[in-house]
Amino acid sequence: MRIVDTPEAMQLLSRSWRHDEQLVGFVPTMGALHDGHLSLARAAREQCDRFVASIFVNPLQFEAREDLEKYERPFDRDCRLLREAGCDAVFAPSVEAMYGARTTGSARPARTFVEVEGLGGVLEGKTRPGHFRGVATIVTKLFSIVGPRRAYFGEKDYQQLKVIEQMVRDLFLDVEIVPCPTVREEDGLALSTRNTRLTQDERKAAAVLSRALHEGVALTRGGERNAARLIESMRALCEAQPLVDVQYVAVVDSETLAPITELDDRPVRALVAASVGDTHLIDNMAL
Amino acid sequence: MRIVDTPEAMQLLSRSWRHDEQLVGFVPTMGALHDGHLSLARAAREQCDRFVASIFVNPLQFEAREDLEKYERPFDRDCRLLREAGCDAVFAPSVEAMYGARTTGSARPARTFVEVEGLGGVLEGKTRPGHFRGVATIVTKLFSIVGPRRAYFGEKDYQQLKVIEQMVRDLFLDVEIVPCPTVREEDGLALSTRNTRLTQDERKAAAVLSRALHEGVALTRGGERNAARLIESMRALCEAQPLVDVQYVAVVDSETLAPITELDDRPVRALVAASVGDTHLIDNMAL
Repeated sequence: MRIVDTPEAMQLLSRSWRHDEQLVGFVPTMGALHDGHLSLARAAREQCDRFVASIFVNPLQFEAREDLEKYERPFDRDCRLLREAGCDAVFAPSVEAMYGARTTGSARPARTFVEVEGLGGVLEGKTRPGHFRGVATIVTKLFSIVGPRRAYFGEKDYQQLKVIEQMVRDLFLDVEIVPCPTVREEDGLALSTRNTRLTQDERKAAAVLSRALHEGVALTRGGERNAARLIESMRALCEAQPLVDVQYVAVVDSETLAPITELDDRPVRALVAASVGDTHLIDNMAL
Repeated sequence: MRIVDTPEAMQLLSRSWRHDEQLVGFVPTMGALHDGHLSLARAAREQCDRFVASIFVNPLQFEAREDLEKYERPFDRDCRLLREAGCDAVFAPSVEAMYGARTTGSARPARTFVEVEGLGGVLEGKTRPGHFRGVATIVTKLFSIVGPRRAYFGEKDYQQLKVIEQMVRDLFLDVEIVPCPTVREEDGLALSTRNTRLTQDERKAAAVLSRALHEGVALTRGGERNAARLIESMRALCEAQPLVDVQYVAVVDSETLAPITELDDRPVRALVAASVGDTHLIDNMAL
């Protein structure tokens, strides 16, 4: 497995693979890998000739500087896990390489941004302004550099997945987005890098997010068609946990993320976001 | 020469060329071709194995609906000129194909936009807000669809050239931008599709823009180093023409487009914009 730290070297490597008609798969990550990431890696390994993972903690998608600074960066462990997963190359560039000398006051910082209006402005986009602009911008850059035929994204970050899908469609990017199911702990908690920040009590309480979503699924299967009532039930479950501070519970169209009033035959998704202690957690399920 | 009207067909054609190791050149246009465009076509023809021209009047880069509607669309003549120039394919998609059913109220219009901050906000970007966002967005889409190795842009639209160069650098797009010199009429007027809208008197008066720029070049060669005095001289020449309403005369760093106070060894560009009657004209020269 190669470790590549400049966009130029990555572009050369990937170009040589494409030249040899190797199908290139791509798993973008911010490192601090868990089984969720590794399930993406396994899919890429199975479905592609070559597979690149990127490790890049993207400053542009963090709202608070503090959150960015406390983001884990266990680089050697991540590389070991990716090697074991059969990864061909890890792309791990510096912030300076990806954004010019933006932070160091150079005369030529990167100033090009990709914005997905609509999808990028609701739910997480409302609580974290600029977040999806940061995501869309870095993913565009990574796609240009890695030039994958397929890219793997987890459904855990459902809105991110939809933002990326829309961006790829709108900009005609020549890459297939492959969604992969959320990986969960035994008690249902969706895997997330942020879970390690939870205290023992918070960790226990956090399982209520997936329990609430399962409740939404059960109620829907039981015939409930009214979104407000579904939201109320899910929210009530979460709010019964004193350590959980709900940001939103939403029932939306699976593609447009527009709020639903009455469920009909269209695919519908329930999404929940909450602070558990100081930690921001999100989860979602198809209803 | 093929005429291709869907992004999917264009992507397939271009992919097959790249697969055969043909170097693909690209000349994006809004049609209504003149010798300026044809000089780009000649360069592409000489330097590439295959060359694609696009004809697409991009609604996103027009400020006023009226200007968009009165934009000439002599499609058959354009195709004849491109065929004579040795073009391999004309890509002429519909607005709906490029932006989803944006204008027809579809549920899934394109909502992804590319913005080049800084460069895109000064000079023309100030008088025409949203213009360069429209340019950057459509050029990103066209590059994804046509997949060129080289793309040709005229220096006549100097700020557009710099915006595209920065965007390509920032997003790591795998395309070489080839700038081509401005083509001029005998009296110096830079060729532009808009020139045909000028009355005879306006047409005569419009030549003052290039005369003013030549004066700037002459003064600089004569040793003038003070930008304010250069601007004053150029502006005075333009303002002596009663039919010419100057929007700006600027002396800027050739790369960053930042205003210059005193000329030193860095490359410097003079830019001028004016309304001649109802017609917006721009021109520029290296000082």
